[in-house]
Amino acid sequence: MAGFIGLDVGGTYLKGARIADSGEIEARLHEPIVREHPEDLLAQFEQAVTTLRGAVPLRAVGIGLPGIVDHARERLRGAPNLPALAALQERDLGAEVAKRVGRPAFIENDANAAGMAEAWRGAGQGAESIVFLTLGTGVGGAVILRERLWTGRSGYAGEMGHVQLDPEGDLCGCGVRGCLETVVGNGGWVRRAERKLQSRASILAGQALEPASIVAAAREGDPVAIEVVDETTRALGQALGGLINILNPERAVIGGGVAAAGPFLLDRIVRDTKGRCWPQAFGDCSFRLAALGGDAGVVGAARVAMAGVEGRLRA
Amino acid sequence: MAGFIGLDVGGTYLKGARIADSGEIEARLHEPIVREHPEDLLAQFEQAVTTLRGAVPLRAVGIGLPGIVDHARERLRGAPNLPALAALQERDLGAEVAKRVGRPAFIENDANAAGMAEAWRGAGQGAESIVFLTLGTGVGGAVILRERLWTGRSGYAGEMGHVQLDPEGDLCGCGVRGCLETVVGNGGWVRRAERKLQSRASILAGQALEPASIVAAAREGDPVAIEVVDETTRALGQALGGLINILNPERAVIGGGVAAAGPFLLDRIVRDTKGRCWPQAFGDCSFRLAALGGDAGVVGAARVAMAGVEGRLRA
Repeated sequence: MAGFIGLDVGGTYLKGARIADSGEIEARLHEPIVREHPEDLLAQFEQAVTTLRGAVPLRAVGIGLPGIVDHARERLRGAPNLPALAALQERDLGAEVAKRVGRPAFIENDANAAGMAEAWRGAGQGAESIVFLTLGTGVGGAVILRERLWTGRSGYAGEMGHVQLDPEGDLCGCGVRGCLETVVGNGGWVRRAERKLQSRASILAGQALEPASIVAAAREGDPVAIEVVDETTRALGQALGGLINILNPERAVIGGGVAAAGPFLLDRIVRDTKGRCWPQAFGDCSFRLAALGGDAGVVGAARVAMAGVEGRLRA
Repeated sequence: MAGFIGLDVGGTYLKGARIADSGEIEARLHEPIVREHPEDLLAQFEQAVTTLRGAVPLRAVGIGLPGIVDHARERLRGAPNLPALAALQERDLGAEVAKRVGRPAFIENDANAAGMAEAWRGAGQGAESIVFLTLGTGVGGAVILRERLWTGRSGYAGEMGHVQLDPEGDLCGCGVRGCLETVVGNGGWVRRAERKLQSRASILAGQALEPASIVAAAREGDPVAIEVVDETTRALGQALGGLINILNPERAVIGGGVAAAGPFLLDRIVRDTKGRCWPQAFGDCSFRLAALGGDAGVVGAARVAMAGVEGRLRA
């Protein structure tokens, strides 16, 4: 049986896996990424593929990238925090990797890849249309319609993290004031907790502030932490309500580090989405936390390769 | 050459047209709609088709309806302000009309139909993906991807008029507080103008308040009217910015009565969308006012019939 290789490019690490048609992970790789020199980064991709493919026939390679992938031009866009990758923006990265490894190669935005992974083997299984949000330092997303990515005219589709919720809110690096990421990205949780801690007592005082510690404090009933969580889930509810009215999807999947908070968070997100869209459309959408955790990136990149060679990657 | 018939069902009038493959309108009908009795309404549809088809071979009939059309069940949903139609919600309206006229018949939400009309013969021509908003008493919309409607799991897709912009805003009949319609629907323009007129002088004082008179006063430099227009275009900018980040469409089309305001309004909408989405995605989207005016409903219903018989109505 032939395998697919998925590479997940982060700002610090390169992760990779060889994945069977069934979705099973057969080999893994995890190493510091080449940060400075574009040719060295390409060589690292090639070496990773060589290491992972072993003696198994390879069908294709997929690469998830921390930036926008413009499929009209097969170029990476945006300025990811990785100089070696930024230097490759004027080149057809898929074609370069394909030439080096002798097999087809496909590039995709990392959140889109993670969404494809969840649709295939995770929390999106069985749903025909999915909106996917992944929460972390940044907030990414994917729109999947009939099992294919909708990437739009130039690859920006699915950038739900940067939908404006509050015109008076904090300014985001994306240029939009009060976008979803400013509220529900890690920085948003921390900023709001810090502001509240200046004038209020909380078990969070003196703790390292991050979504996980804030959720833990909220679970213990800390009022400041509960407020931060509520502000987060209300913003997610507003964004998801909008997505439900615009796309009427069958499934909404929330991923990223906060997915570890489990039903404590998901129940609040569902509560805060209700009343922010048509009741029937709300009722027709089921809500799930992402199921693949840290594997979503590599599994999704492999899925991108699989869908790519089969000509059914994009709607 | 065979024709298609489009019927546009409103709360007061039934409009209809026979339309050639080319899009040309060959016959028209405009009459008061049957409001009370469902069987009489079905008979009116049948009679309208008989009147419009004349001696021309008829290929199919499309009907635009003021409600949500759930294609999974082929049922009308929502509670339109038309008792005769509301009474037909448990029946397969397309099949009923098809049986009566002896040709295939397709039902669709009226805003979706109007969007299809603009995509085919109007302001959406040449664009592969379109977001369409139509502004009036209500605010409807359509999402068109690769020339097909995306209607979602149960027909609610494209309900951009009810996306929440301001959680503290006015409560809409849809159940959402501060949705787009509460700001940019006709009632939103009028409510805000009335509030301002309680304490401020304006050439609007004593005038019949409606979007057209408010736009006219704004053109003359009236500060109150300009504020109402600015609030409207900022809300549209927020909604369109979100749509651009979510769908990255090639074209945004604004229709409904206010389209008559021309570049005066469109330029402000474009100005207020800029800065509310990724600059590149903004630049990849062109903005147009709807071009078909009052014909969009019947032309769109005919287009729905045409796409329906060709099996390419929905994405």
